[in-house]
Amino acid sequence: MKETMIVTPWEVKGKINYDKLVKNFGLNLIDENLYKRLEKYLGDNFFLRRKIFFAHRDLDFILNEFEKGNKFYLYNGRGPSGHTHIGHLISFMFAKQLQEAFNVKYFIQLTDDEKFLFKEELSLEDVEKFTYENALDIIALGFDPEKTKIISDLKYAKTMYKQALRVAKKLTFSTAKAVFGFTNDTNVGSIFFTSMQSVPAFLESVKQKKKIPCLIPHAIDQDPHFRVARDILPKLGFYKPASIQCKFLPGLGKGGKMSSSEPNTAIFTTDNQKDIERKVMNSFTGGKDTKEEQRKFGGEPEICPVYQYFYFLFEEDDEKLKMLYNNCKKGKILCGDCKKELSKRIKKFLAEHQKKRMKAKKIIGKFMLED
Amino acid sequence: MKETMIVTPWEVKGKINYDKLVKNFGLNLIDENLYKRLEKYLGDNFFLRRKIFFAHRDLDFILNEFEKGNKFYLYNGRGPSGHTHIGHLISFMFAKQLQEAFNVKYFIQLTDDEKFLFKEELSLEDVEKFTYENALDIIALGFDPEKTKIISDLKYAKTMYKQALRVAKKLTFSTAKAVFGFTNDTNVGSIFFTSMQSVPAFLESVKQKKKIPCLIPHAIDQDPHFRVARDILPKLGFYKPASIQCKFLPGLGKGGKMSSSEPNTAIFTTDNQKDIERKVMNSFTGGKDTKEEQRKFGGEPEICPVYQYFYFLFEEDDEKLKMLYNNCKKGKILCGDCKKELSKRIKKFLAEHQKKRMKAKKIIGKFMLED
Repeated sequence: MKETMIVTPWEVKGKINYDKLVKNFGLNLIDENLYKRLEKYLGDNFFLRRKIFFAHRDLDFILNEFEKGNKFYLYNGRGPSGHTHIGHLISFMFAKQLQEAFNVKYFIQLTDDEKFLFKEELSLEDVEKFTYENALDIIALGFDPEKTKIISDLKYAKTMYKQALRVAKKLTFSTAKAVFGFTNDTNVGSIFFTSMQSVPAFLESVKQKKKIPCLIPHAIDQDPHFRVARDILPKLGFYKPASIQCKFLPGLGKGGKMSSSEPNTAIFTTDNQKDIERKVMNSFTGGKDTKEEQRKFGGEPEICPVYQYFYFLFEEDDEKLKMLYNNCKKGKILCGDCKKELSKRIKKFLAEHQKKRMKAKKIIGKFMLED
Repeated sequence: MKETMIVTPWEVKGKINYDKLVKNFGLNLIDENLYKRLEKYLGDNFFLRRKIFFAHRDLDFILNEFEKGNKFYLYNGRGPSGHTHIGHLISFMFAKQLQEAFNVKYFIQLTDDEKFLFKEELSLEDVEKFTYENALDIIALGFDPEKTKIISDLKYAKTMYKQALRVAKKLTFSTAKAVFGFTNDTNVGSIFFTSMQSVPAFLESVKQKKKIPCLIPHAIDQDPHFRVARDILPKLGFYKPASIQCKFLPGLGKGGKMSSSEPNTAIFTTDNQKDIERKVMNSFTGGKDTKEEQRKFGGEPEICPVYQYFYFLFEEDDEKLKMLYNNCKKGKILCGDCKKELSKRIKKFLAEHQKKRMKAKKIIGKFMLED
């Protein structure tokens, strides 16, 4: 069965061909030269070294301006349609590294309006709850509230809606349809929504009453929104937002990105130790059916989510990762052992994260922008 | 030349055939029985007696509920695309009479977002300015701030946007297109907008956490918005809003409603005495080309805006109006005299209005809802 790749802001399906996405979306790969320029500020960066963040638009512009003394700010976010899973953390972790390296401001947008509009089953109360829960996960990563502000589209609607109208006025249904694949059956809120997602890309310019460059580190599926923003923002007198794209952490099932809508193959930051262990131990792998076959023929780390988790988040040491890869290929390691090790690391990580998450409840007020 | 009638929320053109509109929109005429029921509360009401407010939806439901002790509230508004002209005042004057007769709450919505989205040339600053100016005109009519609240969609966006999303989620592009005639070139904000206009029709129910009937006294061109609201609100657990429609005060030119976009044939509440006189004296009339012809053949009050102004606002006495009509028909009165009298009355009315408008600046804060 051939799986068609679908990558839109609302659906990611099939085997992801990143080269094809880069080409289709008109992105640039982060080349050696740009990597070196970033290294000057970030040092040896895990997400760049592993090519987890791998593509961009106008990142050279961001660095040129920065080096001329024209500081950028960061913006990304998440749609609060459920609890945060560990794949969601990647963009926030990388943004934190960028924020610290360049000492810049950072807006995090929680698009509760979007999730209400696009998910039939979600009520306003649901998305408001998940906005709160997701904000705790972000704050748990250790941001500085002086430089980091979280926007809920609903709670900050007075500011957001007014600015979104400026974008909406310049965006025809025809363009929105072409970019997002809307039909006559799409609801009118969904059609309007991308205007809200474009606002943080120029909000700091509005606040400071001058053009300020914006850099958006985001998962590649969100690119269509920022293509629209890049088209319209210059018409309003702002810079085109620059961006840097990452790959998807796969789910624990066979193929596809980790998705909140498949709870058994996604590890949520709120999962307890037992759940984590169960999910990891039940994961699809690149292993053979029996120990004997595994020892004889070896496994396939390329298609194995367990290996991918080490690659994306849980084995920082390249040498150790390489050893894991080779040992798997040679059949020297069995899936059960690999899963146990991953489960141990995720449990440790989330036990700590959950403590920080509890503490975040006391300081969430310092982060949330409200009208 | 045959003029095609166009009546949409954004364009009114040609000779208005009210019977046809009532039929096309699916409205009901206010019949003798309903008139009598209203008279019980309103007494002899000028706007009803003259059939200026002449059509409705579910007005009987509103009265039935009221008589069962289930009070309704009032809602209407205006798009602040320019200064208020005297035609705009009619809906607010009538709403005031309803408010006093039934002792009910009243929301007035100033759709600054709409005017920004639909009028290419208007900036956010422009619509914010006109929101303020228009609010002064409304307040000048003498409302009680305890029972009357003015909503600017921009200033009250935190409340409005959230509620509008509930409507937007249930409204497809296909329906919006059919009702409003949108095309692929329509901007995505305009497509979303009707959701904002529907909010005050259920806002009081949201605030009081129970279903409350809503009555909307409005000029007939706004009916498409409320048809959409009537379709969707019951799906959200609210009553269908009821409504009562009025005719348009004509402009001082030949045909068409008074329109802010034709400043020489519209009398603005901010016009000075000289402007008023000039505009009225330059008005199109139903008179003949020469005094002699006028005396011989008489005039045509039916097509005369000057006569219409007496009819709509400036001659309350039916007997005197009838005399004016007859004298015109018989050629006993000349257009110049008629214009002078109208000019005198409008100047007097606006001189007083302008004083109240100045005073309104001091109390506007009591009326405006803000997040």
